[in-house]
Amino acid sequence: MTNELLSLSLSEISGKVAAKEISPVELAHASLDRLEEVEPALTAFVTVTPELLLEQAKAAEAEIARGDYRGPLHGIPMAVKDLYDTAGIRTTSSSAQRADHVPATDSAAVAKLYDAGMTLIGKTHTHEFAYGATTPTTGNPWDPTRTPGGSSGGSGAAVGAGVVHVALGSDTGGSIRIPAALCGTVGLKPTYGRASRAGVASLSWSLDHVGPLTRNVTDAGIVLAAMSGYDRRDPASVDLPVPDLVTGIDAGIAGKKVGIPTNFYTHHIQPEVVTAWKDTAAKLESLGAQLVEIEIPFAEYLLSVEWAILCPEATAYHRDYTRNTPQLFTDEVRTLNEMGEAVLATDYLQALRLRTRIQQGFKELYEGLDVILAPGVAATAAKRDDPYITWEDGVVESATSVYSRMSAPANVTGLPSLVVPSAFSSEGLPIAVQIIGKPFAEREILQVGYALEQHSDVVGRIAPVIAAEAAV
Amino acid sequence: MTNELLSLSLSEISGKVAAKEISPVELAHASLDRLEEVEPALTAFVTVTPELLLEQAKAAEAEIARGDYRGPLHGIPMAVKDLYDTAGIRTTSSSAQRADHVPATDSAAVAKLYDAGMTLIGKTHTHEFAYGATTPTTGNPWDPTRTPGGSSGGSGAAVGAGVVHVALGSDTGGSIRIPAALCGTVGLKPTYGRASRAGVASLSWSLDHVGPLTRNVTDAGIVLAAMSGYDRRDPASVDLPVPDLVTGIDAGIAGKKVGIPTNFYTHHIQPEVVTAWKDTAAKLESLGAQLVEIEIPFAEYLLSVEWAILCPEATAYHRDYTRNTPQLFTDEVRTLNEMGEAVLATDYLQALRLRTRIQQGFKELYEGLDVILAPGVAATAAKRDDPYITWEDGVVESATSVYSRMSAPANVTGLPSLVVPSAFSSEGLPIAVQIIGKPFAEREILQVGYALEQHSDVVGRIAPVIAAEAAV
Repeated sequence: MTNELLSLSLSEISGKVAAKEISPVELAHASLDRLEEVEPALTAFVTVTPELLLEQAKAAEAEIARGDYRGPLHGIPMAVKDLYDTAGIRTTSSSAQRADHVPATDSAAVAKLYDAGMTLIGKTHTHEFAYGATTPTTGNPWDPTRTPGGSSGGSGAAVGAGVVHVALGSDTGGSIRIPAALCGTVGLKPTYGRASRAGVASLSWSLDHVGPLTRNVTDAGIVLAAMSGYDRRDPASVDLPVPDLVTGIDAGIAGKKVGIPTNFYTHHIQPEVVTAWKDTAAKLESLGAQLVEIEIPFAEYLLSVEWAILCPEATAYHRDYTRNTPQLFTDEVRTLNEMGEAVLATDYLQALRLRTRIQQGFKELYEGLDVILAPGVAATAAKRDDPYITWEDGVVESATSVYSRMSAPANVTGLPSLVVPSAFSSEGLPIAVQIIGKPFAEREILQVGYALEQHSDVVGRIAPVIAAEAAV
Repeated sequence: MTNELLSLSLSEISGKVAAKEISPVELAHASLDRLEEVEPALTAFVTVTPELLLEQAKAAEAEIARGDYRGPLHGIPMAVKDLYDTAGIRTTSSSAQRADHVPATDSAAVAKLYDAGMTLIGKTHTHEFAYGATTPTTGNPWDPTRTPGGSSGGSGAAVGAGVVHVALGSDTGGSIRIPAALCGTVGLKPTYGRASRAGVASLSWSLDHVGPLTRNVTDAGIVLAAMSGYDRRDPASVDLPVPDLVTGIDAGIAGKKVGIPTNFYTHHIQPEVVTAWKDTAAKLESLGAQLVEIEIPFAEYLLSVEWAILCPEATAYHRDYTRNTPQLFTDEVRTLNEMGEAVLATDYLQALRLRTRIQQGFKELYEGLDVILAPGVAATAAKRDDPYITWEDGVVESATSVYSRMSAPANVTGLPSLVVPSAFSSEGLPIAVQIIGKPFAEREILQVGYALEQHSDVVGRIAPVIAAEAAV
C-alpha cells in the first residue's frame, strides 16, 4: 500500500512542507517504508542511503522551522541513477568495473539539487554503464516480470512505484524516456547542453543528456530548472539563462502547430501504441492545437548515424577498462566496446557530417511547427526473460532496439523531448507519447504535456507492485 | 617597379577613391600591370580575371560617381585563394581533381566582400587542397627560388609583391599565417566560428578558418569585419555580433598583459627569429605593456592532437576522390589521404577529448593575460628545390612541419592569431611575430599589431621581385 503522503503530488507536498504541515523527516520515512515494500520485487536500487536521507531530512526540517525555506524541492527525496557521482557514496554505473568507486565530489546536477534542498534516498540501477535499454537487474513496477526499460530503469521503477516523486536519469539513446514510457512516469530529456553532465559517467559524450523522471509534468519542469545552467566543466554546456519552466505552464495550447509524423514512427509499432498516439493527437486538437502532417527528414539515416557515433564514443570512454579488465564487463557491453574498436575515424566523421545535415533538416522542419507529437516507445514492456518483440511481419527485434528506435531523433538532433503517459494497454502496461520541441524550448513542450495531464487519468498513477510476481 | 598607386596604404587609397581622386578602374589597371610584371617570377595565380575585374571596377566607379559609396573596400581589388568558390570562375583548389570545377555560387566570404564593393583580380594558388605548407607552384616575392609558404602561398605572394592590398586565405594548420610570415605581409586567422566557411573547400572542418592576408594591420581588421558574421550554412558559425574592428585600433597597449612563452616556441627555431621575437617583446614593453612569462599548457600534445584530428577529417572530405580518382592527386596528398583511412575512430576521439582539455588549459592561462606574443614561424623561407631545414642538433625537418609547428596552438584552440612582420633576416627574408588572443578578441590583437606597426619600418613593405631569380 502506498503511503497517503506519497499519493499527493509534488506540488501538494511542497505546499505542505512550506507550511510546516509535513516534515521532510516524515516524508523520508514514507519513502523508506515504500521502498522496503517494493524493493524485493523491483531491485531498483544499487545502494540505499537511509542514514544520509534522515540526516538531510532533519537538516531540512530545521532550516524550514527557522524560516529558511529554499523552494519547492526543499526536503523532497530523490533517487539518483548510479551513473551520477555522489560524494562519499559508492557510484558503480551498475558495473563490476566500478564496484568500489566512491567519488570525492558530487556531480554537478546532484550538487545543484542538494542546493535546492533535495534529499537522497539512494542510487538506482542502470543498464551497465547506460549501454542498453532493459536494465536486467530491475523489475517493472506494473509487472515485475517485465523490464522497466533502460538504461535509467531503476529510476523509472522507483518513480513508477511511488517510492519517490523525482529520480534522475541520463539519456544517450532514450535512457530517460524509455523507462519513463515503460514505467508510466514523466521523463524529460532537455536540449543538448542545457544541464551539466559533469560528474556523470559518459556513454557517448556528443549524445549524452541528463534530466529527471517525475510523476507529474510540472515536477519535471521544477527539477530540470533546478539542475540546469552553464558549467564550464562540461564542454557541451551552453551558456544560456535557465528560464522559469513552471510559470505559464498552464497557458494552454490554442493555436500551437503540432507535427504528426507520417514516417519513421509508423513502422514496427504495436497497434495499441498507435491508438494511444492518435487519441492524444485528437485530444490536442480538441484543446485548440493545429495538427500538421510532417515527414521526418533523413529518417533512413537516423539509426545508423546514432550508432556510428555512439559506439566508438563509448569505446573511447571505456578504453582502459576494455584493455585492462575486460572480464569485469558483462558480455553484452564488452562486445559492444570491442565493436567500437573497429570503427574507422572516417566512418565516424561521415556520421558526424550527416548528423549536422539531419540537424539542419529538423531546423527547417520546425520553421512551420511548435512541437512534434510522436509515440514514446514502439512497444510496451517486454518480459525480462525474453527481451524481444516479434512483429506482425515475423521480424524479431531486441528490446533495446525496439525501445531506443523512436528515441533516436531527439538524441541525434539534441532537441528536447518530454515523455508523458497516455494510456494503459490491454495487459495493464503503460503507454506513452513524446513531445519533441525546438532547441531550448523546454517550456513549450512542458506546456503541451501539462495540457495533456489536465485531461488525463493516467498521468501520475502509482503502480501497486504486487510482490508475488517478483520471482524472476 | 611598383606603381605609385599601389605603394599607398589601403586606407590612403580608400580615402582617395571615396573622394573620387582615384578611380577603381585606375586601381584595377595598376594591379593588372603589377601582376603582369611579377607573375612570371611568382606563378601566384591559378586564374586571372581581368575582364571581370575591369567590369566590376567600372561598376564601382559608376556607383561612387553617383554618390553610392559603400565604404573602405569599395573598388579595392582582391585576390582569392582558389579554395574559395567564385560563381562562374573555375575553382580548382590547385588540384587536378577539380581542374574543371566551376561553382554556380560564390562562397559566403566572397559574396560579403563583393557586397562591400571589392573587385576580383583572380584566384591564387594553394598547396593542393590546402594540405601542406609550401605551395610548390609558387615563388616567394622576396626571393622566387624560395617558398612563399602555404597553403595560401599564392595569396601571400600576391600581397607581398604588391599586386593587391588584400588576398583571402584559409588556415587549418597555419595556412594564412605561414605565407604571411614568409612573404612579409599581415595575416589574420580569426576565432573559430567567426567567419563563414560556406563555399570554401574543407581540409579539416573542426580546424578550418578563413581570413585575410593584407599589407597593413588596419586593413586586416577592415576585411575581416566585412567577411565575418553568422551563417547557418557553416555549422561552426557562431551567432555573435561582428564588432567594428578598426575604431579604437590606435588605443595603445599601456597596461596590456602580454604572455611570453618559455616553452613550445623555444625549440628548433632560427636564432634570427628568436632575436626578432625578443626585440618585439621589448618594443611592446617600451610601449607600456607588461610582459609575463608563461608556460604553454599541454605543449607535448599540441602537434599529435592536431594531426590526429586533421588527417582523418581531410580523408573523410576527400574520400570519393581517393576511391575513384586517386591518380589525380599529387603523391603527397594521396599518401596523406591514405594515411587518414587507417586512423581509428577511438584515436580520433581521444584527440578530440584532449583538444577540449587543451582549450580549457588555454582558458585558464588567459585568466591572467590579454595576448600571447609568439614567433610567427620557426624559420625563414626555405629553398623551393630543398624544402627542409637542418637544425643545429642535426635534426632535419620538412618545411611543412617547420612552418606549421608554431601555428598549431591557435588551430587546436581556435583562438584568433595575427601575424605581423617584425624584421628581415641577414638574407633579406621576412621574419614575423604572431599575437594570439582570447576567443573573439580580434580587436585586441589588432590593437597590439597596430601599435607594433606604428613603430616598425618593415610592416607594409612591398617586395621588389627580381624576375631574373625566377628560373625555378
